[in-house]
Amino acid sequence: MKGFFNLLTSRKFQALLADFEPLSSETVSLDKALGRVVSEAISATEDLPPFSRSTMDGYAVRARDCFGAGESEPALLSISGEIRMGEDARGIRVGPGQAARIWTGGCLPPGADAVVMLEYVREPGDGLIEVFRAVAPSENVIERGQDFRKGETVIPAGTRLRAQELGVLAGLGILKVKVRRRPLAVIISTGDELVPPEASPSPGKIRDINSTTLKALAELDGCRTFSMGIVPDSYQEMLQACERAVDMGADLVLISGGSSVGNRDFTMKVFEDLEGCRLLAHGVAIRPGKPTLLARKDNTVLFGLPGHVGSAMVVYWLFVRYAVSVLLGTSPDNGITRVRAMCGEPFPSVMGREDYVRVVLESPEKGMEEGSGLVARPVHGKSGLISTLVKAHGLLVIPRDSEGFHQGEYGEVIILS
Amino acid sequence: MKGFFNLLTSRKFQALLADFEPLSSETVSLDKALGRVVSEAISATEDLPPFSRSTMDGYAVRARDCFGAGESEPALLSISGEIRMGEDARGIRVGPGQAARIWTGGCLPPGADAVVMLEYVREPGDGLIEVFRAVAPSENVIERGQDFRKGETVIPAGTRLRAQELGVLAGLGILKVKVRRRPLAVIISTGDELVPPEASPSPGKIRDINSTTLKALAELDGCRTFSMGIVPDSYQEMLQACERAVDMGADLVLISGGSSVGNRDFTMKVFEDLEGCRLLAHGVAIRPGKPTLLARKDNTVLFGLPGHVGSAMVVYWLFVRYAVSVLLGTSPDNGITRVRAMCGEPFPSVMGREDYVRVVLESPEKGMEEGSGLVARPVHGKSGLISTLVKAHGLLVIPRDSEGFHQGEYGEVIILS
Repeated sequence: MKGFFNLLTSRKFQALLADFEPLSSETVSLDKALGRVVSEAISATEDLPPFSRSTMDGYAVRARDCFGAGESEPALLSISGEIRMGEDARGIRVGPGQAARIWTGGCLPPGADAVVMLEYVREPGDGLIEVFRAVAPSENVIERGQDFRKGETVIPAGTRLRAQELGVLAGLGILKVKVRRRPLAVIISTGDELVPPEASPSPGKIRDINSTTLKALAELDGCRTFSMGIVPDSYQEMLQACERAVDMGADLVLISGGSSVGNRDFTMKVFEDLEGCRLLAHGVAIRPGKPTLLARKDNTVLFGLPGHVGSAMVVYWLFVRYAVSVLLGTSPDNGITRVRAMCGEPFPSVMGREDYVRVVLESPEKGMEEGSGLVARPVHGKSGLISTLVKAHGLLVIPRDSEGFHQGEYGEVIILS
Repeated sequence: MKGFFNLLTSRKFQALLADFEPLSSETVSLDKALGRVVSEAISATEDLPPFSRSTMDGYAVRARDCFGAGESEPALLSISGEIRMGEDARGIRVGPGQAARIWTGGCLPPGADAVVMLEYVREPGDGLIEVFRAVAPSENVIERGQDFRKGETVIPAGTRLRAQELGVLAGLGILKVKVRRRPLAVIISTGDELVPPEASPSPGKIRDINSTTLKALAELDGCRTFSMGIVPDSYQEMLQACERAVDMGADLVLISGGSSVGNRDFTMKVFEDLEGCRLLAHGVAIRPGKPTLLARKDNTVLFGLPGHVGSAMVVYWLFVRYAVSVLLGTSPDNGITRVRAMCGEPFPSVMGREDYVRVVLESPEKGMEEGSGLVARPVHGKSGLISTLVKAHGLLVIPRDSEGFHQGEYGEVIILS
């Protein structure tokens, strides 16, 4: 494919992105922290749980007192007390031959090391119980600090906070967290053929789609966004738009359109002329997405994305999302699901470029081998169409050094979210 | 496993949930519609694209005029004009033997049916061009309506709107969409051992975790949430809390805690005594999650979830998320990724219950067969621990009629988000 061999590989393009610095931190309260990325490792301020707890309703016992107990030979223990939920159990002691009534979540009293479930106990009266089954030490017990010990790292730096991590923080009483500032993505569409979505296009014009899709993608990835709308195809206006974006503190500038040779040339010139800005890449050996531009001004990432919405989205997924991860100081694979799938049809390609082919994933047909997993089939339709992206489940990656996949071969599919 | 055989299967439990009605609709603007679920199918109000467009910089031609053209025998055409970006091309006509200069995204002029790329054209001057390659009809052209034809369904009812769908709507100028109202999930924790996350627990007490995790999960699924905090372990107070939740318009009431026999009994009694409420299920044959309660008052779904945070989250993923999907009128599988994985170790289970085992997923080792995909290994640690959920990538599903998986067998893993 003409021209692809002189372009950057996607790996080199990503290496340029990896050079940007993570953003500064800010402190947010726990109830605003979902989806944010922690900037420093968080350690346990105390043991979690703070005391050994029962996981069953039953009796707290000394396991050794029930060794050998069985249906025909129950262990006989005397009841030394009852631990009510939420009560300090230190007032109750389980000595040899003793047991204490306990509920799920109750605090294990001193002396006891296991809990025997209620269903294996009979209460004949007179403050005695019969235990019909042996228990091992710490059976039906969660030990103090078994989730996390005081001082232990609970959440490493760079973690994107999910419900699970928020739960751990709540359990430890950590109600404020240091997280990376949300990147500001400024979105610019360019092209004399474009009108805003609210306009009725005259003949020859079409509505701007990229402003909407890129904004949504950036928001899903945790960015704040600002849409500048449509900037006319003019060097001067585009230069001013970029200056304005930088002035307002943009961490990412996403310019789409201008993929035809003439337009692309002036976007490139704007990136070169913008004060303190350096053009890092003027093309990448992938399809779609070849004409992608990358520039850097201080720590601001400037992208020139293809005008076709389908191509712009693919470049977003491959590179803009990667850049957002770098700015957030999190793993670039965070939030990206890759699956292996069997090619249900041949996928021809050309040496020297990576292809990202829109595919639907189907369940394997009956009679196929056990591990075959999913079957990938191409979504038919030209890459400039947005309907093909609506239909696609993922992008099949055809490597640079490959002429494609035969039917039955396995490839990697990036799941589109 | 004692008692599991008399419980509802997860499928029957889900069938009870499928009986609830989708919520009413509201109209939102496109820029607020990301992640919302459309309540009515949306049709194209016009053709998209509204005219045939070039996907390349080059010349608009009649394909038949270039049949047989090649390096040694170029087709000679005369230039009839240039279509500037965003211009109405109806003033230009491409007749037999003619061509018109066109840019990527430009409107194909009448008469032309294909575009020949600039790199296969030489311009010797005198208003003539030489074309060195044949083109097929509609090559390098996206036809009018090729994305969507006027009247065609663009987005089916029940679709959760992603960036792709928003882009299509922007392209069609559809700036308002009818979507399902966001469900209101009211979250209640109960248990005398609980204190709020901001409190310092006295001995025997622990901080409430479920309020935080369930709120985050419900928000991720598109719910509005209201946390009632901790309600004491009392029939009267819990009944009042449920009445208050219903009064404030709750679509879902998520009560967690009370998994010990005594507490669970009064939550069950509250569900039975709440006016107009009906208990639908008092247990399900899964582990963890067996003591889950389900009730219905009008179209409000009331859940009694286990108190252990790990169990409560699993039940959320399996059933609460399912209920949210039903209320939103979308597919219950929407947003849930399932993968097949090979068991890297034996996973024993017991007939009569479904097991949801926390696993990490690893890449297959070298030398393993091609299609083997991911390898699942158990996360060690008791199911009451939240740390095991922080570490887990997914839940391996062990079916009800199985005694587990041998090493090397394949199973289905639900990816935890």
